[in-house]
Amino acid sequence: MVVGGGFAGLAVVRGLAGAPVRVTLIDRQNHHVFQPLLYQVATAALSPAQIAAPIRRIFKSQPNVEVVMGRVDGLDADARQVSVVRADGSVEAIGYDALVLAAGATHSYFGNDGWAAHAPGLKTIDDAVEIRRRFLVAFEAAEREEDAKRRRALLTFVVIGAGPTGVELAGAISEISRTVIRRDFRRIDTGSARVVLIEAMDRVLPAMRPMSSRKAADQLRELGVELRVATRVVGIDANGVAIQGGSRIDAGCVLWAAGVRASAIGAMLGAETDQAGRVVVAPDLSVPGRTEIFVAGDLASVEMVRGAKDAAKKVPGVAPAAMQMGRFVAAQIRARVERGWDTPATSGVEERSRFVYRDKGTLATIGRARAVGEVLGMNLSGFIAWAFWALVHVMFLVGFRNRWVVMWDWSWDYVFFERGARLITGQKGHEVTKKGE
Amino acid sequence: MVVGGGFAGLAVVRGLAGAPVRVTLIDRQNHHVFQPLLYQVATAALSPAQIAAPIRRIFKSQPNVEVVMGRVDGLDADARQVSVVRADGSVEAIGYDALVLAAGATHSYFGNDGWAAHAPGLKTIDDAVEIRRRFLVAFEAAEREEDAKRRRALLTFVVIGAGPTGVELAGAISEISRTVIRRDFRRIDTGSARVVLIEAMDRVLPAMRPMSSRKAADQLRELGVELRVATRVVGIDANGVAIQGGSRIDAGCVLWAAGVRASAIGAMLGAETDQAGRVVVAPDLSVPGRTEIFVAGDLASVEMVRGAKDAAKKVPGVAPAAMQMGRFVAAQIRARVERGWDTPATSGVEERSRFVYRDKGTLATIGRARAVGEVLGMNLSGFIAWAFWALVHVMFLVGFRNRWVVMWDWSWDYVFFERGARLITGQKGHEVTKKGE
Repeated sequence: MVVGGGFAGLAVVRGLAGAPVRVTLIDRQNHHVFQPLLYQVATAALSPAQIAAPIRRIFKSQPNVEVVMGRVDGLDADARQVSVVRADGSVEAIGYDALVLAAGATHSYFGNDGWAAHAPGLKTIDDAVEIRRRFLVAFEAAEREEDAKRRRALLTFVVIGAGPTGVELAGAISEISRTVIRRDFRRIDTGSARVVLIEAMDRVLPAMRPMSSRKAADQLRELGVELRVATRVVGIDANGVAIQGGSRIDAGCVLWAAGVRASAIGAMLGAETDQAGRVVVAPDLSVPGRTEIFVAGDLASVEMVRGAKDAAKKVPGVAPAAMQMGRFVAAQIRARVERGWDTPATSGVEERSRFVYRDKGTLATIGRARAVGEVLGMNLSGFIAWAFWALVHVMFLVGFRNRWVVMWDWSWDYVFFERGARLITGQKGHEVTKKGE
Repeated sequence: MVVGGGFAGLAVVRGLAGAPVRVTLIDRQNHHVFQPLLYQVATAALSPAQIAAPIRRIFKSQPNVEVVMGRVDGLDADARQVSVVRADGSVEAIGYDALVLAAGATHSYFGNDGWAAHAPGLKTIDDAVEIRRRFLVAFEAAEREEDAKRRRALLTFVVIGAGPTGVELAGAISEISRTVIRRDFRRIDTGSARVVLIEAMDRVLPAMRPMSSRKAADQLRELGVELRVATRVVGIDANGVAIQGGSRIDAGCVLWAAGVRASAIGAMLGAETDQAGRVVVAPDLSVPGRTEIFVAGDLASVEMVRGAKDAAKKVPGVAPAAMQMGRFVAAQIRARVERGWDTPATSGVEERSRFVYRDKGTLATIGRARAVGEVLGMNLSGFIAWAFWALVHVMFLVGFRNRWVVMWDWSWDYVFFERGARLITGQKGHEVTKKGE
């Protein structure tokens, strides 16, 4: 059984194709999301169907897979079963012989859960659609606002957290405001929108090399993004954010890209977790004391073991790492099934059963033809980094069809600088009023 | 001022391009929806962005247009102003010299508003996404259901109302169940899904000729749709529908395509309305006694004046009629502005100021390569009718880009019989639980 249909979960299931096992894949959504492009949905460049693929379709030709749409709300490791709340609300207990937890992470507001309503994070398609709604509604409201101060606030966008997602969001918002939608409005100049990127650490993209941070900061400034590093947010409300030290930024739209916390399923397991809620796993990604349970992807806390100087570092929560872990776990399960599930490994197998993360580099995109990257030891930036980023992301997009549609869309956008997905949907409040008419 | 960005409203605004007037276009949504293809979003064949275009983008090159995203919740015809609830909830009063009401229609449950929760109708993108969610979730639930009777109910889809929308929905649901998604599931045979189309009148497509109804019924049956004509629904609850006479159909998904009612804005006007809430207008589409207010599209109750035998019939609530009315109203306004707004018309102008609906025919699609039509006096059915339908609809799609994307999508679907938009999104209940984790 595999819990989670993200990059790690899919890699596990794919790795078990043709193996003499029955695989049950459980996910809350009926679709896999290509997370690295989710910010493009949030900023109205792509539409949801372009970066998501129904999980059932992905595995329709892999007969040993059953897909269950549901949310795991309980785990009994002794009884070897999980409790699943299905799409229609009913609850089902499903047993397993081996379990792979790949439920990923969600955003964390560091204990300030009240902030969630005012500063949505970006993990699911629904999150992206909600951010898109807020982003576009801010311009709509500003267009009709008579009060100059209030209009200024409505045209202020604050992104909290300057990791890759925050950088992508801030860059895209600033770029779109200054170009694509500028001619759509009559009273406001969307090009005057203020985009503030706040980071608690002393530089943007703190997980990358200082040189990449500098290049990224330069490119963000070129796009008009205002950077506030070494700045801590102490409050978020409907009208903006409060900064440590007493200052305040009034904003029409605040987005959260600052913290992630591992899925609660890690805690259900009763195993050791790190401060981000990730499960501390053995070198073969199994849970210590539970050799039938593996953890892969963002939910796993794995030490890098490539050399003494990296020993303390953890494998990062990025898509390539998740896919590598997934493939590794699938290979582990295959090997154990082949030799008999409970037969101890021979020394030869033992040697292979240590997950090693192969870091192929990091890329962060900033805007149209702007990105930074660290690939094969090289520092890339600007158009080259962006082209490389676009190529890698399109290549990896799940599903042949999506790949072509995205390429088509991107080519179109690149040539005509047009945005086709600029819809404001999901206005539940509006909706109710309308139906009541 | 134009209220409503549907086919009628857009035609009015376009018709005023270059005229020496300032146009304010108010719509609840920020996008125009190509309504005839909405059922394809509801049945997961197209994604929302493919049939909708941001209104601002449509008019970005028409400088005399201002777009306001908001809901009209009040109209003072004496003071010549409307009250608008904007996207951010604030209220604004906007004055006008001339007003065009083109706010269209919404679904009507004939006084049974409690049915709305169990049988959504199809008017907006949000409606379509909600129907798509229910349609797909029913299969997900059936796949995990152990009880045969309950599984059978989950695989029963009821569509109430066999006008064009009901026929399209029923045909598409049956076709998709029997083909596209069949290999996605392991336990259920989606091809065994029961699709029931209920109509109170004695034939499907009652507004078309009896021969078209017969051909449509044949094609629906070929697709596996169960027809129940002359059948009246007397109750709808979470588990199915109750039929007059005492029988009951248990169903996992019930859709409403039976009744429409004109927007409430007609009532705000204080003018005469017909039983569907449509405003009874003068031959020039103005409101009797209010020459500065016009009504166009589904909100207008217009008698056909093409000959004695048709005199009692009303202009139908279809897209071509809405576009014709919109163009006509724009021409009226232009003519009046040219001669001075309050100058009485000369007899020559008077003669032109009578709206005449040009019926170019009717097409109703039933499924892949299946449709019926009445065009230029000919009865069409099957592939010819469908090809004609596809051509007409793609040609009319607003926005060059959408046109190409839809053609691309359709070609792909036709060749590979694949569905790219099969996402279940907008699960607010799920969402909240997840965020609370």
